[in-house]
Amino acid sequence: MEDLRQRAATLDASDPLAGRRQRFSIPDGLVYLDGNSLGVLPAHVPARVADAVTRGWGQQLIRGWNTEGWIDLPRRIGVRIAPLIGAAAGSVLCADSTSINLAKLLQAALAMVPERQVVLSDTGNFPTDLYVAQGQLAQGGRLVTVAPEDVRAAMTPEVGVLMLTQVDYRTGRLHDMHDLTARARELGIVTIWDLAHSAGALPVDLSGAGADFAVGCGYKYLNGGPGAPAFLYARPDLQDRVGSRLTGWMGHAAPFAFDPDYRPAEGIDRFRVGTPPILSMVALDAALDVFDGVDMQAVRDRSISLGELFIACIDRFAGRFGLELASPRDAARRGSQVSWHCPDGYAVMQALIARGVIGDFREPDLIRFGFAPLYLSHSEVVEAAAILQEILTGRAWDQPRFHARAKVT
Amino acid sequence: MEDLRQRAATLDASDPLAGRRQRFSIPDGLVYLDGNSLGVLPAHVPARVADAVTRGWGQQLIRGWNTEGWIDLPRRIGVRIAPLIGAAAGSVLCADSTSINLAKLLQAALAMVPERQVVLSDTGNFPTDLYVAQGQLAQGGRLVTVAPEDVRAAMTPEVGVLMLTQVDYRTGRLHDMHDLTARARELGIVTIWDLAHSAGALPVDLSGAGADFAVGCGYKYLNGGPGAPAFLYARPDLQDRVGSRLTGWMGHAAPFAFDPDYRPAEGIDRFRVGTPPILSMVALDAALDVFDGVDMQAVRDRSISLGELFIACIDRFAGRFGLELASPRDAARRGSQVSWHCPDGYAVMQALIARGVIGDFREPDLIRFGFAPLYLSHSEVVEAAAILQEILTGRAWDQPRFHARAKVT
Repeated sequence: MEDLRQRAATLDASDPLAGRRQRFSIPDGLVYLDGNSLGVLPAHVPARVADAVTRGWGQQLIRGWNTEGWIDLPRRIGVRIAPLIGAAAGSVLCADSTSINLAKLLQAALAMVPERQVVLSDTGNFPTDLYVAQGQLAQGGRLVTVAPEDVRAAMTPEVGVLMLTQVDYRTGRLHDMHDLTARARELGIVTIWDLAHSAGALPVDLSGAGADFAVGCGYKYLNGGPGAPAFLYARPDLQDRVGSRLTGWMGHAAPFAFDPDYRPAEGIDRFRVGTPPILSMVALDAALDVFDGVDMQAVRDRSISLGELFIACIDRFAGRFGLELASPRDAARRGSQVSWHCPDGYAVMQALIARGVIGDFREPDLIRFGFAPLYLSHSEVVEAAAILQEILTGRAWDQPRFHARAKVT
Repeated sequence: MEDLRQRAATLDASDPLAGRRQRFSIPDGLVYLDGNSLGVLPAHVPARVADAVTRGWGQQLIRGWNTEGWIDLPRRIGVRIAPLIGAAAGSVLCADSTSINLAKLLQAALAMVPERQVVLSDTGNFPTDLYVAQGQLAQGGRLVTVAPEDVRAAMTPEVGVLMLTQVDYRTGRLHDMHDLTARARELGIVTIWDLAHSAGALPVDLSGAGADFAVGCGYKYLNGGPGAPAFLYARPDLQDRVGSRLTGWMGHAAPFAFDPDYRPAEGIDRFRVGTPPILSMVALDAALDVFDGVDMQAVRDRSISLGELFIACIDRFAGRFGLELASPRDAARRGSQVSWHCPDGYAVMQALIARGVIGDFREPDLIRFGFAPLYLSHSEVVEAAAILQEILTGRAWDQPRFHARAKVT
């Protein structure tokens, strides 16, 4: 693999984003290929959170809602996320969890198509999205799931809402957002895109695609910290015409008038509900600094470069150990993660983690590796592949510990 | 007011909870009578949050869900809140916001009484509770609000759900939870109690009262920090029979099996939805340490003692300046806050804040003062009253700045 090591060194040396790595606190000796599950800590975030705790909360106390600007933080974070996903300022809100936001938008979307209470999704969607839809459709309507490649054909005039995750959480398969959204618009289907594995990893063009709604995650490629608040998008011209049934005081037109009747705020604020978790939001807000001045196309280029290199490495020995690429081989059809079907994949991943290479395992047999383009180097990618090869080569297949399946929680 | 100052000093000297104050970081020169809006920072919390950020997130990264116990944090925090509200361990969950939790429980409650889709509440309820009910009833059913004192009489067999906040956010008026819940049970009415202004301020006895459901707030008397996650309670025997339509992966029986179909977890975990905001939860978890070993009856005694003293102070000059007590005079019918109708109340409160006495103003004319029993002293209460008297005495009533109304956000 020496040739690949050299290629990696060359690529790292010429990489326009290579300098961003210094802005993260990466544990020594770790090759972290799981930024798609929980992004790495940006180095300046601890000081920002500490300040929010000791000065903001501790000294300002209740006044902090004004003096620290906490009251507008959900919208201000939205303004910062907007350019990463091709959205107009004022069309993105940071709030709640991805699941809760999806529930809100499904309510809004289903209300737009009262005669077509059918939600179309795909079998590769992250289960929580399907669970949310099942919950929202429990009193009427239907969730239809088809294989990802059959989504376009399954769009019929009967379908009211198309709810897709752009990048498949297991395989990294990338849906063609422009094409599917355009087709949906022809058929009067309302679109909701889940950008959990897209935002911060590749350029997203919600405005250009004409998407109606979107949700996304703060703790993956946006590096907002464990369980960071999520975001939602609503197309500007829809915002004042729709709403959810999750109505709370922060989404009221005048939250501090304490009006007994709900009256939705204008614009994206109407999708706020309760009081936002400020400390977690401050961490996300600070983390977004690492995207300042970053060109998302450069991020995408580096993501593809890292993924292609990793695949080239694994190709060298995959056949010998029964590894089968589960992701699209064509980089244009892939997000920022790559996975393989791997015999005894759970045990293999545990062995990798024990050697300091963090990826993750997804049932039934997938080993999955994410490439966070802002802090991962090509050299690390080759190193991870080399360690995987060592593990596969040295494995004692007859030892029962490799077959044990601990509960993955 | 010298006699009251002396009384305060005596009370502080003999107070069994007086030592708890040392566990909080209280800004110098501030008399903070707004712990019912945002609790003061416990002194040990910054270190705990910093550790969660730099070591938990920074070093453990994705492994933190296991090694730091993040995955079970919502339930573990629930176990710590349970004794403060008279709930069995395992019946309380920390999650989302109060508003979102209320929506979940309203869905569960309304599903238990399909023929009685009427929610009864009172006009003194915090508006977000009314908004949540309006949202949940938008597709059928009805919200009925009556004056707080008329709630008992308004409970009829037509009513399906009684949704009340135990302590009125403006007046501090305390509902009789035992009596109203018992009456509700006689009539087959499902009860949901909002403990926003109760939890951590007075003993609550959900089990003893036989309440069905409850929600509450993490950032008021529990001192969890700005927008801290909220909690919810479901009576143990109901948990496996009910659920909400906000179904997400963290509430699934096997979240990491990635089953395409939702199957609710057993017990209180089914009310989880998305990934919880860990940094905010860590702050709340740490903050709860200050309640270790605290007898909630002692908290209540001190709360009443502080409130009674403040009322005694204000009584000395209230009539002269047109102040009228808006809270029940009988301490047994009051939570841990006291408010007055006050001419030009907004301007008066701004003047108090400028002098370092933090309370708040609530439309139309209420000045409100909360007494967080763990960190407030009797001497501070007298000091606050003395400053209020000075302000009222020295006011230049003809100066327009006292009549200006800035937007309260």
